[in-house]
Order: sequence, then C-alpha cells, then structure tokens
Amino acid sequence: MAKTETISNALPAPPSPTESIAEERRNPSFPVRELSVYLDNGPEAAAYKEKVMFQLERDPLWKMDNTPDLTLPQVRERTMAKVQNLVHFLETESIEKFRMRMTVLSVVDPAFWTRFGVHYGLFLGAVQGQATPEQFAYWVKKGAVNLKGMVGCFGMTELGHGSNVAGLETTATFDEKTDEFVIHTPTLTATKWWIGGAAHSATHCAVYAQLIVKGKRYGAKTFVVPLRNPEDYSLLPGVAIGDIGKKMGRDGIDNGWIQFTHVRIPRSYMLMKHTKVTRTGEVEEPPMAQLAYGALIHGRVSMVLDSGNMSKKALTIAVRYAAVRRQFAERPGQPETKLLDYPIHQYRLLPLLAQAYALSFTGMEMERLYNNLLKQLEKVQKGATLSETLAILKETHATSAGLKAFGTWNCLHTIEQCRQTLGGHGYSAYTGLSSMYQDFAVQCTWEGDNTILTLQCGRYLVSSLCDHIKGKPLAKNVQYLARATTPIQQSALKTSEALIQLDVLQDAWAAVAASAVDRATKVFQTALASGITKDMAYEQCSPQRLQATKMHCYYFVISRFIDGIARASPATQPILTKLCLLYATYSMQENAGEFLQAGYFDGAQIAVIRDAVIQLLRDLRQDAVPLVDAFNYTDFVINSPLGRYDGNVYEAYFNLVRANNPKTNDIPYVDRVIKPLLQRQSSQDEGPELDF
Amino acid sequence: MAKTETISNALPAPPSPTESIAEERRNPSFPVRELSVYLDNGPEAAAYKEKVMFQLERDPLWKMDNTPDLTLPQVRERTMAKVQNLVHFLETESIEKFRMRMTVLSVVDPAFWTRFGVHYGLFLGAVQGQATPEQFAYWVKKGAVNLKGMVGCFGMTELGHGSNVAGLETTATFDEKTDEFVIHTPTLTATKWWIGGAAHSATHCAVYAQLIVKGKRYGAKTFVVPLRNPEDYSLLPGVAIGDIGKKMGRDGIDNGWIQFTHVRIPRSYMLMKHTKVTRTGEVEEPPMAQLAYGALIHGRVSMVLDSGNMSKKALTIAVRYAAVRRQFAERPGQPETKLLDYPIHQYRLLPLLAQAYALSFTGMEMERLYNNLLKQLEKVQKGATLSETLAILKETHATSAGLKAFGTWNCLHTIEQCRQTLGGHGYSAYTGLSSMYQDFAVQCTWEGDNTILTLQCGRYLVSSLCDHIKGKPLAKNVQYLARATTPIQQSALKTSEALIQLDVLQDAWAAVAASAVDRATKVFQTALASGITKDMAYEQCSPQRLQATKMHCYYFVISRFIDGIARASPATQPILTKLCLLYATYSMQENAGEFLQAGYFDGAQIAVIRDAVIQLLRDLRQDAVPLVDAFNYTDFVINSPLGRYDGNVYEAYFNLVRANNPKTNDIPYVDRVIKPLLQRQSSQDEGPELDF
Repeated sequence: MAKTETISNALPAPPSPTESIAEERRNPSFPVRELSVYLDNGPEAAAYKEKVMFQLERDPLWKMDNTPDLTLPQVRERTMAKVQNLVHFLETESIEKFRMRMTVLSVVDPAFWTRFGVHYGLFLGAVQGQATPEQFAYWVKKGAVNLKGMVGCFGMTELGHGSNVAGLETTATFDEKTDEFVIHTPTLTATKWWIGGAAHSATHCAVYAQLIVKGKRYGAKTFVVPLRNPEDYSLLPGVAIGDIGKKMGRDGIDNGWIQFTHVRIPRSYMLMKHTKVTRTGEVEEPPMAQLAYGALIHGRVSMVLDSGNMSKKALTIAVRYAAVRRQFAERPGQPETKLLDYPIHQYRLLPLLAQAYALSFTGMEMERLYNNLLKQLEKVQKGATLSETLAILKETHATSAGLKAFGTWNCLHTIEQCRQTLGGHGYSAYTGLSSMYQDFAVQCTWEGDNTILTLQCGRYLVSSLCDHIKGKPLAKNVQYLARATTPIQQSALKTSEALIQLDVLQDAWAAVAASAVDRATKVFQTALASGITKDMAYEQCSPQRLQATKMHCYYFVISRFIDGIARASPATQPILTKLCLLYATYSMQENAGEFLQAGYFDGAQIAVIRDAVIQLLRDLRQDAVPLVDAFNYTDFVINSPLGRYDGNVYEAYFNLVRANNPKTNDIPYVDRVIKPLLQRQSSQDEGPELDF
Repeated sequence: MAKTETISNALPAPPSPTESIAEERRNPSFPVRELSVYLDNGPEAAAYKEKVMFQLERDPLWKMDNTPDLTLPQVRERTMAKVQNLVHFLETESIEKFRMRMTVLSVVDPAFWTRFGVHYGLFLGAVQGQATPEQFAYWVKKGAVNLKGMVGCFGMTELGHGSNVAGLETTATFDEKTDEFVIHTPTLTATKWWIGGAAHSATHCAVYAQLIVKGKRYGAKTFVVPLRNPEDYSLLPGVAIGDIGKKMGRDGIDNGWIQFTHVRIPRSYMLMKHTKVTRTGEVEEPPMAQLAYGALIHGRVSMVLDSGNMSKKALTIAVRYAAVRRQFAERPGQPETKLLDYPIHQYRLLPLLAQAYALSFTGMEMERLYNNLLKQLEKVQKGATLSETLAILKETHATSAGLKAFGTWNCLHTIEQCRQTLGGHGYSAYTGLSSMYQDFAVQCTWEGDNTILTLQCGRYLVSSLCDHIKGKPLAKNVQYLARATTPIQQSALKTSEALIQLDVLQDAWAAVAASAVDRATKVFQTALASGITKDMAYEQCSPQRLQATKMHCYYFVISRFIDGIARASPATQPILTKLCLLYATYSMQENAGEFLQAGYFDGAQIAVIRDAVIQLLRDLRQDAVPLVDAFNYTDFVINSPLGRYDGNVYEAYFNLVRANNPKTNDIPYVDRVIKPLLQRQSSQDEGPELDF
C-alpha cells in the first residue's frame, strides 16, 4: 500500500510502531547483553548460537515463514532435505557444538527436530544403551551414526499400548533351529503406531517386543528389525507399513504404522547388553533391569530445556507486540494506550515471562543432573556402587519425570496465553503462536504421558517420605520432606518487607510442598492399612500425588532459580531477583488454597502476597521488552511478523499474508457453487393439479 | 487385517472393546432417554434434532471424516456448497426449526456455521438492527434474507483495531454535492481485516466507518458497501480484497481483508435507524446510542450454548474411549484395567462432565434472558420504559459478556483436557479433538476478547455494588451482592452431611463471590480516592475485577444448574443433583484460596469438600457412559473413531487412517532427498597439496 494519504479530517497520527518499541529500549534497568550471555551459557556458547542463527537465516532451505501453506508431502520433503543438509555439520562439528546447533533448531523447526531426533535420540539412543560393544560397533559400521546406508526409527508404542511397555503385544519368538527371532504382530492392537520416520524414511526399526524363548515369556526387549531395502526403499517381506497422516502439528515428521507378519531376523539383532539369549536358548537376565532405562531420561531433560526455550519464543512475540499494539485512549483525542501499559496485560504476560526465566534455570540444572547420572552409569561396578547408582537413577528419573510434565504443561499454557494476548491476530497461521501450540501440544503426551509421569514423581515423593519416617536418609532434592514430620507452624512474618524475600518465599514453598506430600502419604497409608495392595493404594492417592508433585516442582523450580541468581553477575542479580520474586509470589497466589489450608499463611499474609504481585508487575513493566530481548533470538528464529525486533509489525504482517496468498479475487469455485446459489430461480414445483 | 491369529504363547485376550463399553450401559442409575429429552428441550425438539442428524449423515456433502486431508481451496468450496444446500431449509422451515438445525450444524461443522453465520448473524443482524423499516425492506428485496442476488459480510475489525470500535480509522465522508458517502481506507492499519466471507463469497459488506459530515466526526456508524458485481464476481472500482489465508482452524470460512479507495455509495446505504443524515447534511443523533448494540448480544448467547454443546461432544469421545482403553493390569496375568476405573482418570474427566451439564443449563437460561430482552426492546417507549429497558440491556450485556468468556474458556480447557486423556491418539487429526481445539480456540477472542468481556462484566459488578452502597436497588442476577456490605461469617457447618448440600454450597458461592466483588470494589474506590479518573481507577482494579467476574460466573452457573434440577423430572433429579454437587465442590476446591481467604471456610471444612469430591467421583463412575449417551449425538456428529457408540474404536480408527492415507510406501521424494543422503560418498576435499 502506498504511503498514508493526508486527509484534512484525519485524527492525529499515533506514535509509529517502530518508535513505540524503540522507546522501550531506552532505559533498561540492567545490562541486557550481560544477562543474555549468562542465559546462553557464556560468551562462547552465545557467539556460537548467533553464528548458527545467522547461517540458518541465509539458507533458503530453512525458510520458515511460508510453511503454513505447504501441503503435507511438501512439508515432509522439506523436512527430510533439512536432515540431509544437517549431516555435514554432524560429520564435521564437535558433539557439544552440534548439540547447541540442535537446541537452536528445536526452536526454529520442531518437526525437523523430531525427525532428526527419532534417529539420533531414540533409535541410536536405544542401540547405544542396549547393545553390547560388538553389536554397537556393527551398527556404527552399517551407518547408524552418520546416516549413511541406514535410517532408524523407534518402534515402541502400539495402537493399543502406550505407557505400559510391559503390556506390548508384538512378539519376538526365538527359533532355535535357525538361530533367528521371529517378529510378529499378532493382533490389530499390536500394530506399531505413531512410529516417527516409519512412513517414509526409516530402513531399520528398534522394535520393542515380548521375548519368547522355548515357550516362556521374558518381557519386552529390543530388536533391530530391517524394514526396507536401503537401495530402492522397497518394503522387506512380511513388513507392512502405512502413513499415520495428518496430525495436530509437526507434520514434517512422517509417523507411520507397522505390522510384522512372521519376520525373521538373526539372533544377533536383539540388543543384548542387559538380557542375553544364547545360541541354545539360554536366557540370562540382568541383575538390575532398571539400568536399561537410564538413556530414556535424556528425552525428558531435553523437553524441560525445550519448555524454557519455547516459552521464550512465545513471550518474545507477545511482549513485543504488546509494546506496539495500542487500544483505547485514556482521554478522547489522545493516542491509544499500549497494551503493555494496562495492568491487566502486565498481569497476563509478566508472570509467564518470569516463569520462562525460571524454566531456563531448571533446564540447566536438569542437564547437570543428567550428565552426573551418565558419569555415574559409566563407573557402575557391582556391589556398593550399584545401589548408589540406582539411588541416583531413581532420583533423576523421578525429578525429570515430574519436571518434564510440569515444564511442558506450563509451556503449552504459556503459548496459548500469549496467543490469546494477540487478540484476533493470534488465530492467523502466520503470526507464529497457533502453529507453536499445535507443534508443542504433543510434548504433554509423548515419551511419557504427563499425568503418568507426574504420578511417578509423586510415587517417589510418597515413598521417600515413607522411607524417611522409617529412618532412611532423604535424597538431595527431597531433603525438605523432613519438615513433613513436624506440624506446620504459621509464619510469624506479617509485613511486605519481611515476607517478600527470596529465602522466606523458598522456605514457605518447602513447608507447603512437604505438607502436600504428607497429605498424599497419609491417604496412601490409610488405603494400605485397609488391606489393599501397594499399587492399589498408590492409585487411591493419585489425585493427592498429582497435587503433591505440582507443589514439589514449584519448590524445585524456585530453588534452582535462586541458585541461578547466586551464580549471576552482580549487575544482573537485581533484575533476576525481581523476576524470581514475581514467580514465587504469583505461583503462591495461584495456589493460595494450599498455603492457607496448610496453615502456613493466613488470609492477611496472602493479601500481602497478592499486593506484592501487583507491585512487582508495575516494577517490571519498564524492563519487559529488554527482558525478552535478552532471550537473544533473531527475527528469523522468532518467525512472527508481530514479534519483530524493530516493531514494524503491521507492514510485515500485511506483506507476509499477501506473499502467501498472492491470488487476489481468484475464487476457484465461483462458477460451480456461488453463482448457481445467487442466480437460482425459485421453482417450487407444486406437482400436477388434482381435481379431488 | 485378517482375524487375530491364535498363537500358542499368546496372553489371554482382554475383553473386547465392544463388550467393554456394552457392560457400562447395563445398569444406569437413571432413565437415560428421559434425561436426554430434557436436555434437548422436550420430546418434539429431541425428535427434530434426531431427524436433522439422520439427514446429514446420509448426505455425501456433509461427509466430515476426511476433512483433515482437504486442501484450503477444497474445504472452502465444500463449505460454500453446504451454504447452497442449506438455503432449501431456510426457505421452507419455520425459524424455530431452522435455528435448531443450525445448533446441530454448529457441532457438526463449526467452519460452516461461521460462514453461514457471517451473513445471517452478523450482516443481516446489523441490517435488521440498524436499518430503518424502508431500508430493511430494500435489502430484503435485493435478496439479503434468502441469499439470492447477494451475500453479505461484516466489516467491523481493522488490521490495527479490534475491540475499540470507536478507534476505527475507515472513514465515510458525506459529499453533499452528489448525496453520496465516500468510503475510504486512509492507512494500512485501517485495512478491514479478518472479514469472514470477504475473500470469496461476499457481494456486500456492512462497513463500520467514521461518519464525517461537513468536516465534523460523529463516530463509527454502519454503511452497506457493495464489493463485487453479483453477476460475474468482479471487484467494484476502488475495492481491493485479499485472502487472509491459513488460520489455526475453521478454514472453511474465507476470511479476507478489504481496502476502500474513495468508494462512493448512495446516502441511503448508511443504516439510519439510530443516527440519521439528511440530504442537506444535518445529523440527527439518537437519544440512546446503546440501543443499537442490543443485537450484538445474540452472538455471545450462542457462544455460551455452543460451549455447552462442544463440551458434550468432547466428553463423549473422552469418556467412551476411557471405557474401552485399558492400561496396566492390577496383577500380572489379569486383563489391563479400563482407564475409567482409575481414580486419576475419574478426577480428570468427571468434573468436566459435570461442567458440561452446568454449561447446558446456563445456555438455556441465557436464551431466556435474551428473548426477554428482545421483547423489551420491541416495546421501548420514551420515558419510564426506556430507563427500565436500559437497565435490562445493561444486565443482559454484562451477564452475557461474563458468561461468553467463562463458557468459551472452560470449553477450550475441556477440549484440551479430553484430548490429552486420549494419550498419543489425541494428537491425530482423525480422532476429533485436535481439530475441535483448533476450531474452537477463536471463540475466546472474536465478538469480544474474553479478557475485555470479563472486565466489562466486572465493571458492572463493581458499579452495581457501588450503586447499592449508595442505596440503589440491585438487578436480579446480582442480588447476592447485598451480602458484600456485612462482614463475612465463617460457616458453622462442619460435617460432610451438613456441608454437601446444594443450597449450602450455593450460599457459600454467593458469599465468596460477593466478597471477591467487594475486594475489587475496594481497590477501585481507593484508586478513585487518589484522584485519578474513573476509567483509570477501573484499570487499576482489573486483576481483581477479572477474579470477581470468575467467581460471579461460578455462582451464576451453579444457581442455574440448581434451577434446572428443580424443573427436571423426579427420576432424573438424583443424577443431576450428584453432578451439580460435583461441579460445586470441585470448583470450590479449585478456588479454595478464595474461600479460605474470605474466611468463609477453614482448612478443615475445605478438607471435607475435597473428600466429597473424591466420593462423588467414585459414585458417578458407574454412570459415566450413560451420562455422555444422554447428550444424544450420533456417531456422525461425534465424528471420532474413538468416540463410537459401539466401542469398536481400534478397527474404526485403523480403517479411517488407512482410508485417508491409502498410498502405502509411496514416498514422493525418495529419489530427490532420501537416496542421495543414504548413498552419498564421503568426499572431504583436502584441496591441492602445498609444499610450504
């Protein structure tokens, strides 16, 4: 559109969008770059992230702003071409740098991340974690590490079976005569389902199947099963594969279903690091089957990180737009007010911004915990170290399970809230948040359904408290449960000055989280005392376990935020402290019932907390835009005209919509449907005349 | 797939899906059909609903289960063909029956409902509400009522302007010389945006533009502006239209943008029921401008109804699937347990089921309120009746605004929760809930952004309380605010028997809702006393207003549920009472902080409420499937293989995925992308040799 025409009776022009956002950056209360570098793990990592973003932006293959209009085959092809493109970096970069690259890519294109991750995280992870060294060497030689000659997929879930791996129906029956396993799908519900990569790209699958030797079942084990001939991609005999088709999001990944009909594989294709089957059909079971699952934790750790990163992306869009968009004037004739200046808009967005910071520090901590676990797993020796390792494994499993659910649920909530703050524009496919929701939603279900993971963490909390009551020591992250054994004391602090302090709030969260775990534990113990099984008693207390885990996660996340502030530079500590105070008080207000019911605070203290939230929002208002700038994502990564750094949102949005929908007034069905409707003649047929 | 093979080492087969659901229907505690007929507004209406569902199911045009794989042009064409198809019923059916038909259609195909509704609800509603009788007759003659010769769209929102209608930039300048208005889009942000029907189907638009006469601005008024020649669908001079393109959902509706460049229309195309412009440019403004907005309330009333109906559809899928899906066995060797038998699954779904019932009764009440308002508007006389009418208008506006937001937010939440209870299958485009989420999400934003509407209702509540303090009478729906003026007394009831009664819970909600409004009012009054304007004082208390409205809506919805029970047959009252108790206690538990902080309940009383929730869930478990059966939607309307009446979910799901993705192992880009990746040669070029 041409320049705005001047008409005599026009109202005074409002400040331009670019000016509106520029003024937000004039007086940040903190050094933006310094905070940014800290969040990005130091100057070297930050520089590398920037290099990757710059590279991607220039590569036409990574163009993202026209994806809403691609067909399913187009988006699948483009995603696979990205896999092909990335192999260069996989082969030439250090693992650390490649991981950083993948972290950027996960924010740029979640479907791509999944497609690549299915091979690297799931297939290769399974092989690495469950193969003997010789077996692993074999698959490396076949091309599993550098995607040459083979592409893997991960065949765990079935049409009728998800979370309960022990209930899988696919069978792997050992045939002693031929030294082979026979892989078979006995029923419709045993069909492998949702298998990412199966529909189009995979040549091999890590199949979870019931091991049957000499008529005896040994539970679900993992087998590498060839699916297609890597030369011509024809299906191998006995393998039937179909496309799962359209999904809510992540259409770039080719999920498929697989049915095996008596497919034979060599015995050596069973991954035998833990359970072994000998030539004569002897089955050696491992002393600690749980050790096989250590590798699965990594996916959950990634999802906590991803929850932080996706929250950052969503908030960058929502906060920048709120600094540009104006609505209603304070007085007639004045320019309209920025959304960000409304108390209600601060109330909607800034607690989520604080949460995005909180999740980032939790993500960093999860990586540390995970690396620690890996080191521990490497040095496993029989005897003393094994029980120590199992304790660490158990703690890391429970913590990552609870936080995967907590992080992904809260991130999904953040995306939707940010989407709604864009008003009608949030419903467009071109403004970023609708597709982000659709892509992210699956994180609440896959690699452990959130409800089930939350309950697993809750089971750990309840059993930890039960053990503690019996005198056993508490693991590091649940030390606070010791408080559950003494009655809760109401806090003696009354004033805002006394209450609104990080250590005070942290302590309050510890007390109330412990009390929530205590409540779940009491329901559990009562149920158990009624004579039912332990598992059934756990089911009885599941609503309370769910709640206890939520409170535990708040305490964990706030504690890691406080640790992160302690490690930060002095210049960035004040702003981080404000954010942490906001997060701790806002989440307290949202869970006021817990604090009141536990008797830790009374109504007057909660009123002080509520007032503090409002005060902190006002205080953080001026830094809102600098705080999302500090997330350090380029416009390319943000991929939303409404989240542009320069604030020129309307022009960019209009141009993008036009570029993706170039045909003006081309109505393909106007002759077939519209004209016949508008130009129809009424012809109510009365039928032949009757004279009786 | 062929019949399940019998293999010697197979586990005992679990009960079949169809048997699993059949057993749920053996002993309902209530007469299902009787409840169903009551929910459907009596036997005649229920029979008509069934007739419509039956008709649709047989008509190939209404086939819905392959929509996920249609392209944007295909889905738009199919939707328009449905419009064409529906005109027959519009011309031959009574208005009441046609409305019932539309209610069914809104659940079957929300995009169609919108496309049809843009013309009938918005365009025709605007013309009907704002035209003089002569003008209305003119547009009827042109074909506006029976879609013959013209199709209308509704041009209110602009790229830069949504909720603030007064801030619209499009101008309508009166040219006295020619007796015409000049419609003009002066800036990019003035571009009409999101206009449903504009991209493809509309010939006319009800344009909201700033009326300018003799250089003076009179605010936004409505003008009918021709867009296209109805003969050949070419754009008229000065009209530029483009396609808004892909959205999060509802792709069947062709949203577009429109720019007017000095487009001339006759003076008589301005709708002049309220404001009039004479031949000589005299402007007569109406005594009560608010009366023009009465018609806009209808959309909100529909959305409350729609929230109830969509919740019913979502829950039918989730509850039936939970009665079939099995996961984890209680003991090894036993069949796996139904999801519905897990306390946590009851906890996730049954409160939402109770809420769906609650929203239904609120929807019915909203219709009654609205019809009452229409009657009142018809008999408006100057003087005494006018102020009475305005009071009713104000109350109906505030109530419908608050409940539109409350209903649509809660319905969206229900859809997402139901989607997540399907596990991974909820992410498929073929199981119903992902597209339902995408289609429904816009309801939280359009025809009044939910946050803004909630605040408007909150403003009404605060101003009602302020008026009451000054001695003015309270309107019917806010009588309970009288309680805000006396200090709250803690309930004396302690036992479950005493507390878990409908009248007790209703009274508790009234007390605590009044206290929340009181809190908002105090913040408002304090802000006002500090010397700022009334509008700014309202902004200051907006977080409290938001919360107050939420509590008000709970009280309203619970009260209407209780009224609905009183009107129900004796045989259906017990089950409705249980549902209402669950809804009232569960929402109390979710808002425990409010009840505790207000001092109405203490921690022990809240513990009684929490226990009651668990007890009610256990009690309602056996009726879960009959309770969704009572919603009386056919499999065609439910449109999800997982929500089938007969429980045969896996076969139906597998067949549907296969039917929509028939090409097995057809990988369009295998030669372009996959083979080059797998078969590549490593050729790290070392460069020419250097001897220095």
